[in-house]
Amino acid sequence: MISDKMKELVKNNSVIREMFEEGKALSKKYGQENVYDFSLGNPSIPVPEKVNDTIREILKNEDTLKVHGYMNNAGFEDVREKIAENINNKFDTKFSGENIVMCVGAASGINIILKSILNPSDEVITFAPYFMEYKNYINSYDGKLVEISPNTKDFQPRLDEFENKITKNTKAVIINTPNNPTGVIYSEETIKEICKILEKKQTEYEKEIFIISDEPYREIAYDNNEVPYITKYYNNTFVVYSYSKTLSIPGERIGYVVIPSEMDDSKNIITAITIANRIIGCVNAPSLMQRVLIECANEKVDLSMYDENRKLLYNELTNYGFECIKPQGAFYLFLKSPIENELEFCKKAKEYNILFVPGSSFACKGYVRIAYCVSNEMIKRALPAFKKLAENYINK
Amino acid sequence: MISDKMKELVKNNSVIREMFEEGKALSKKYGQENVYDFSLGNPSIPVPEKVNDTIREILKNEDTLKVHGYMNNAGFEDVREKIAENINNKFDTKFSGENIVMCVGAASGINIILKSILNPSDEVITFAPYFMEYKNYINSYDGKLVEISPNTKDFQPRLDEFENKITKNTKAVIINTPNNPTGVIYSEETIKEICKILEKKQTEYEKEIFIISDEPYREIAYDNNEVPYITKYYNNTFVVYSYSKTLSIPGERIGYVVIPSEMDDSKNIITAITIANRIIGCVNAPSLMQRVLIECANEKVDLSMYDENRKLLYNELTNYGFECIKPQGAFYLFLKSPIENELEFCKKAKEYNILFVPGSSFACKGYVRIAYCVSNEMIKRALPAFKKLAENYINK
Repeated sequence: MISDKMKELVKNNSVIREMFEEGKALSKKYGQENVYDFSLGNPSIPVPEKVNDTIREILKNEDTLKVHGYMNNAGFEDVREKIAENINNKFDTKFSGENIVMCVGAASGINIILKSILNPSDEVITFAPYFMEYKNYINSYDGKLVEISPNTKDFQPRLDEFENKITKNTKAVIINTPNNPTGVIYSEETIKEICKILEKKQTEYEKEIFIISDEPYREIAYDNNEVPYITKYYNNTFVVYSYSKTLSIPGERIGYVVIPSEMDDSKNIITAITIANRIIGCVNAPSLMQRVLIECANEKVDLSMYDENRKLLYNELTNYGFECIKPQGAFYLFLKSPIENELEFCKKAKEYNILFVPGSSFACKGYVRIAYCVSNEMIKRALPAFKKLAENYINK
Repeated sequence: MISDKMKELVKNNSVIREMFEEGKALSKKYGQENVYDFSLGNPSIPVPEKVNDTIREILKNEDTLKVHGYMNNAGFEDVREKIAENINNKFDTKFSGENIVMCVGAASGINIILKSILNPSDEVITFAPYFMEYKNYINSYDGKLVEISPNTKDFQPRLDEFENKITKNTKAVIINTPNNPTGVIYSEETIKEICKILEKKQTEYEKEIFIISDEPYREIAYDNNEVPYITKYYNNTFVVYSYSKTLSIPGERIGYVVIPSEMDDSKNIITAITIANRIIGCVNAPSLMQRVLIECANEKVDLSMYDENRKLLYNELTNYGFECIKPQGAFYLFLKSPIENELEFCKKAKEYNILFVPGSSFACKGYVRIAYCVSNEMIKRALPAFKKLAENYINK
């Protein structure tokens, strides 16, 4: 009854549901405040008050048929102009509204790009560890995900392997920085190297290879770390952005795709992406939330709360003897499992009511992802449990 | 550069853009109030004030991290329960929240169903005239659209042809009633016949054949016409609903899919559709709009305005000598072109500054679609132009 492509996903889902049920059972048994759930990437910093104020203003002052109505499938023109202006101010680029297509969150942005460019058996490269949903997106368009193995030294991409794995079938490379799950920001040097390799391969194979830069965490960078704006280094770059994390509104599904005019055949690609927005069924990004961006495109949540969590957790966990690269952005910490099989480590952690996601869910065994977009209080409550967990391995 | 599937669509798009530009040029030349644009299905009745009041209340009273946050990919549980209850009250059904998956409008609803059930070369039947986007949706999953030719007598489906075209590859039938573009409501008798044929074919081929009932116009029915609720006649029925028309909020992209428990393998199908929601990139229906439905699932716009337009236009156009079936629902009137080639008729209409969509865009040549979701004043201004247009054909 179910399509072949979906069968496997439905089967795997029962495993996820089991984990979820287990978590609920723990909460029930020990009380919710005694269970330390670090498994979800769900923003915890309050939505900026300006977002809700802007909604109130819009309902008061604008024509509600327009506010809740259809517009061009690419989005409201004034919203797209505003966003282009905002990007230009921040990153010294030269986009206009024409270069922006509003979309239903970053997930949808990646989908409409892939639908627009992929033919069956085209290859899309990405660097492990990576967000596993990429595989499902690519599979939807009969593309093939090609994985570059993780460089566990500093989690910057392995460039030699990358260069070797580019073939005449390579259509795109997905880059995600600040990275989920490592929290690492790819350095400008890394980005330049990736672009140099791609330029060379484009010439060698006489075809375009796109970068798809998935940037939901762009604004979440700590210690004044810079996140390079990739269109400045490579013309055939799509940028996919979402306001989910920056404004703590992941349920609203609002983001955009940037298609630079410098991209080969950019006009037709903008048209294709706009049509894809329509025919994958999104039609357009939610209209009220688009209008909110006229005032709020430049707002962001108070990141100091994530930063405080980051420092606390990093310092304490390394104190206890765990190994971990210090996250520079996003709200994840990628901890090295003290034993080879991180699934066993996850199981052991559960004995201390600590929940996190195994690295194998990000194509990187031997690690676990700790999402610290939680309350600072929960982290403090969890620390003794982490300490005890550590003692199973470190002091032995 | 563009995927093969998208190439044709990008090419066709320039034709649509040309039409659009032509309309803009007419407005510029003659003034907007002298151009009579009946080409767009864009709701014109004000959004019920309760929708905006409810948004204000939610922002005031609910936790904004929840209001704008992630939830289960199927939607908020309380919203799904509320909607199930609402359907049960109206149609005497027995759904629970489990049978409802919230989605990003009806277009997205159809997509997540097709993604969940279609394998390459599966056939999906629909009755002409039909919304042409169905073809693109089905093509996305490598399915094949099988068209039943239009019955221009009363625009009820041709059941003999339908029965003959069901094969062992038939996976689903899309039904759209009240219908875009004809405004016809399929009678209970028609629905019963369709279901009877499908039951027989399910037995004959020993496989499931689904009905996908696309119902964005369900609530827009005039003269107390009943729109049969198809799950009551056939177990393997998906219902796809959207609030776009009922609440005049098409830009917000909010709707739901009903998967009855009586459907074969319903639990796995609900899971598949929920996962499809995630991996086509929607993730979930916009969260604030979901919460609005707790209060507004039963609201609707004041339909008397569309009804007034319907009667005025139908009476006058038939007075002028045009032929047309009286619409029973939706906000479209499907006029018979007085000449065989309706594209020529559209061209002639443009000389009188009247714009509508040729029937060939709905797989039904020789007709045109007039969308009367416009102001009553515009219709009144347009009538003399329609009269003059008629005189080209009728009195000759």
